[in-house]
Amino acid sequence: METAAGLPSTGAELRASVRAGRYRYPTSGVAPDFVQTNVAILPRAVAFDFLLFCQRNPRPCPVIEVIEAGQVEARMSAPGSDIRTDVPRYRVYRDGSLVAEPDTLIDLWRDDLVTFLLGCSFTFEHALIRNGIYLPYFGSCRNVSMYITDIQTVPAGVFRGPMVVSMRWIPGAKVVRAVQATSRFPAVHGAPVHIGDPARIGIRDVMKPDFGDAWEPASPDDVPVFWACGVTPQAVAMASRLPLMLTHAPGHMFVTDLKDEDLAVI
Amino acid sequence: METAAGLPSTGAELRASVRAGRYRYPTSGVAPDFVQTNVAILPRAVAFDFLLFCQRNPRPCPVIEVIEAGQVEARMSAPGSDIRTDVPRYRVYRDGSLVAEPDTLIDLWRDDLVTFLLGCSFTFEHALIRNGIYLPYFGSCRNVSMYITDIQTVPAGVFRGPMVVSMRWIPGAKVVRAVQATSRFPAVHGAPVHIGDPARIGIRDVMKPDFGDAWEPASPDDVPVFWACGVTPQAVAMASRLPLMLTHAPGHMFVTDLKDEDLAVI
Repeated sequence: METAAGLPSTGAELRASVRAGRYRYPTSGVAPDFVQTNVAILPRAVAFDFLLFCQRNPRPCPVIEVIEAGQVEARMSAPGSDIRTDVPRYRVYRDGSLVAEPDTLIDLWRDDLVTFLLGCSFTFEHALIRNGIYLPYFGSCRNVSMYITDIQTVPAGVFRGPMVVSMRWIPGAKVVRAVQATSRFPAVHGAPVHIGDPARIGIRDVMKPDFGDAWEPASPDDVPVFWACGVTPQAVAMASRLPLMLTHAPGHMFVTDLKDEDLAVI
Repeated sequence: METAAGLPSTGAELRASVRAGRYRYPTSGVAPDFVQTNVAILPRAVAFDFLLFCQRNPRPCPVIEVIEAGQVEARMSAPGSDIRTDVPRYRVYRDGSLVAEPDTLIDLWRDDLVTFLLGCSFTFEHALIRNGIYLPYFGSCRNVSMYITDIQTVPAGVFRGPMVVSMRWIPGAKVVRAVQATSRFPAVHGAPVHIGDPARIGIRDVMKPDFGDAWEPASPDDVPVFWACGVTPQAVAMASRLPLMLTHAPGHMFVTDLKDEDLAVI
């Protein structure tokens, strides 16, 4: 394991560390300022429908890069990478069920698989931190809270299902700033989808996340703020009962060579 | 022909007027505040590659909606529309050559055609006008200047070719404001791709546009400012020698029911 002092500081370093089997942890706060991505890997037969699903649901599924069938390198965002080995932990969904969490995809790879790299909120977390907002899990090897909501995505082909969101406790006085700071980054989920009452988006108990870890507010003044999350394709894999979808494990992202500011629109 | 006083004021009115054969003109300045779109229609066999081309080239090809094979209605952005009849003028490209400019696509339609509606700079023109920038062709039934540049798009599958840009003369003191006002709208090309010397992006003579009309600067202080343009797929159809691509005629857009502000990111 990498020590805190020895955490990889760039995307390339982190990928090398993962590929060598030394890093198998959540990636929040690691290689800060480098764009991290969610991963969804699907057979070519459904690739158009999934890309269209992403186009119709850009907040949970903002596409950073697509690796075409027969290729394993993210040539634009991470030259030299190998999507089969460079993610700290993977998930395998078959017929809508999570069936395995392997360390690599080497044994599962097929030449008809298309990889979608989707923007991740870890990018805008750096913007939140620069704006004085504390994120307790940041750099801790623990994970943000994520929930399956009752907000429905816009279907495309076989793909349909609920939106997954991530939640951060934001001090009341900083909520406006949090909206502003994340609005600059539509390619990594952008502005929040909801501020305040979790029940309004179908979340019964914020202390019982569907993915990741639970976090108490630091102060009674903190407001729960919800952003669309790139784990949504995993909820969609389950809801759509897809025969096969390979993904990252929540919080265990693919880290690119892009810098966060490359994705700012303004 | 509609008179200036009787120009359609909404997307639905304009589409009805086009469908009835009464409106066959450029659409700049018509139905102001409604989102206008470029149109690219392709066989399903190349639809994934084209959607990926758009993902890789979001400035010239920002996708507003995709109408799937077998359908003709833009259900999300223009309910009740018919893409075969609601564009004032179409173009037919075969094997990379422009072969016809029909008024409708009824006789050419096939059930395997997929329609891509791409954002259009006419949306952000309203933002420029609100910021006191004069656009001489606006609402005139004449057309903005468009040029094929030497900026290459990022290829995807069979799709490759040069980026097309539109040009507007902007007073020197307003250039910064023009960048700011258009940056809010990445879904309709967003910020300029180039400011100043046309030769730097391969344009020999701004008075000889490849599409649209030529416009003199209003003052010697005016600066030519260039934005990525949704006519790019037509240059790509030519460069890629596609067997078949159907499009709008430059400047003759499909007008939706979306409002410009729906597309602002901040």
